[in-house]
Amino acid sequence: MIAAAMTEYSIGVDLGGTNLRAAAISRDGAMLDKIGGSTHLSAGRDAVVADIVGAIRTMRDKAGGARLMGVGIGVPGFIEIEKGLIVGSNNLPGFDGFPVRDEIEKHLGTRVILENDANAAAMGEKWIGAGREVQDLVLLTLGTGIGGGIISGGRILHGFVGMAGEFGHMTVVPNGNPCGCGNYGCLEKHASATAIVAMARMLSLGEDLTSEAVYQLAEAGNAKAKMCFRAMGEALGIALANLINVFNFPLFLLSGGVLAAWDLFAPPMMEQIELRSFTYRNVHTRVEKATLGNEAGLFGAAYLPFLQQRADS
Amino acid sequence: MIAAAMTEYSIGVDLGGTNLRAAAISRDGAMLDKIGGSTHLSAGRDAVVADIVGAIRTMRDKAGGARLMGVGIGVPGFIEIEKGLIVGSNNLPGFDGFPVRDEIEKHLGTRVILENDANAAAMGEKWIGAGREVQDLVLLTLGTGIGGGIISGGRILHGFVGMAGEFGHMTVVPNGNPCGCGNYGCLEKHASATAIVAMARMLSLGEDLTSEAVYQLAEAGNAKAKMCFRAMGEALGIALANLINVFNFPLFLLSGGVLAAWDLFAPPMMEQIELRSFTYRNVHTRVEKATLGNEAGLFGAAYLPFLQQRADS
Repeated sequence: MIAAAMTEYSIGVDLGGTNLRAAAISRDGAMLDKIGGSTHLSAGRDAVVADIVGAIRTMRDKAGGARLMGVGIGVPGFIEIEKGLIVGSNNLPGFDGFPVRDEIEKHLGTRVILENDANAAAMGEKWIGAGREVQDLVLLTLGTGIGGGIISGGRILHGFVGMAGEFGHMTVVPNGNPCGCGNYGCLEKHASATAIVAMARMLSLGEDLTSEAVYQLAEAGNAKAKMCFRAMGEALGIALANLINVFNFPLFLLSGGVLAAWDLFAPPMMEQIELRSFTYRNVHTRVEKATLGNEAGLFGAAYLPFLQQRADS
Repeated sequence: MIAAAMTEYSIGVDLGGTNLRAAAISRDGAMLDKIGGSTHLSAGRDAVVADIVGAIRTMRDKAGGARLMGVGIGVPGFIEIEKGLIVGSNNLPGFDGFPVRDEIEKHLGTRVILENDANAAAMGEKWIGAGREVQDLVLLTLGTGIGGGIISGGRILHGFVGMAGEFGHMTVVPNGNPCGCGNYGCLEKHASATAIVAMARMLSLGEDLTSEAVYQLAEAGNAKAKMCFRAMGEALGIALANLINVFNFPLFLLSGGVLAAWDLFAPPMMEQIELRSFTYRNVHTRVEKATLGNEAGLFGAAYLPFLQQRADS
């Protein structure tokens, strides 16, 4: 008797400093199941690992006869891809130098792949999002910080140890705002949600504003609030122009909650790109919103075992 | 009777705005023959093409029974790699939009590959120069302008149409010197040999100085001349820090005549890299001189047919 082809799926995990999410995704990109909760960092690293393992086991049990091809885990911060280590993450204190991949693999007995969260999001957009039709793209994730991922020839460009794509720490204003990384004028100190709030504070718009509140003020016509988004757009434009000159890729994507303010920051951003990139002016280059939102990282993390499998075979 | 294995070689051509050079190079990287002369741009495009074809034929005839695997041609400026077109080159007026690859192929009846000259140089350094032991490197060529090449996974990263690696037009000083590309503050307006001369002029060091003369003044202790190299090193350091953050590659190479002033510009360059790249501070990253000098482009161009052949088979 010949068995019917078994459904193949993988599990993508998004291990953030605040939220821990996991999704079971089929080989053709359908989300079969999803679990979300808080990351209990205060309970310690081992408790967080137990939560991840528990979530995956729950999904695996529910999936019944379907075949789990592996687990991909996206984490914020710097990783060493070969070793499966988190080597620096402000959002995951206690995980520095921890072999999170091997630890979870040991508990589950299935293949685990560790990846930077922005790289995973870029892979997700390439797989079934805004980048479906290209082999090469750059994604910038705009949040409290700015991360990034590079897809080259359909694969994540990792660099030497997996730290490629740190666009948030590109210098856009040589003597600009100081950054926790030790530099001055990093992109994320001039164009993240955090930067919007800091600029609004400098302009005395309020002490406890969120970036959404600054957006509401700007939409209501407040000139100072508009300046914050203009400055943000210009900083982003400088970084994007540099990346277009460096990569000459067909597609550059932006993601993150700040995209709601697209109409405010995109015009000055595009002006800077036009001004600063001969390549942009001469080659059809798309600068667009990513389409998978928060779920890009889950899809991308889940795609990694399928991609790895193809490389193995 | 079994014939002895025939020696395989290819021909690399470096078509510059001033000099036209060609070399026959064996599969194992030995230079078998070399021809150099002027690029007779004033005689017109067809005359230059005839010179290239003539140089290749001469070499082919001299090579006797050895087997020509193809020709690689490095050109300054923007190219469309798929089409084999030069689409923008200040140094080769009259070649804009000209199908130089197909034209030369037609005359020779052998495969021709067109490549940007800095990409060819980067490939040369990877093949038999300073990058022999890595698969990923970035090369910056410092001359009257600044070009660049990216080797990723042992191959040239071309981008969408072949314009990747335009590091000379990265913005390093947002409101810096105006550039012919339409931007302000391009790296090549702050760190090329031309920029050194322009800065020396601004400091009233002389009207007709060469960058070598500014170097001699600096070596003799002239404080203003030293400032020029300090400014150049800082601009280079900002660009390199950004590139290290973007790529996390193990090796970044610099080439060009200005390397003679390494002791003057490298210390401020390395200071900026240290300051501006968390990745540099945490991952062993080499920033070094390229080793093939002027011949990197010839070697790299000659390597392209061998590489292509491997991809075909």
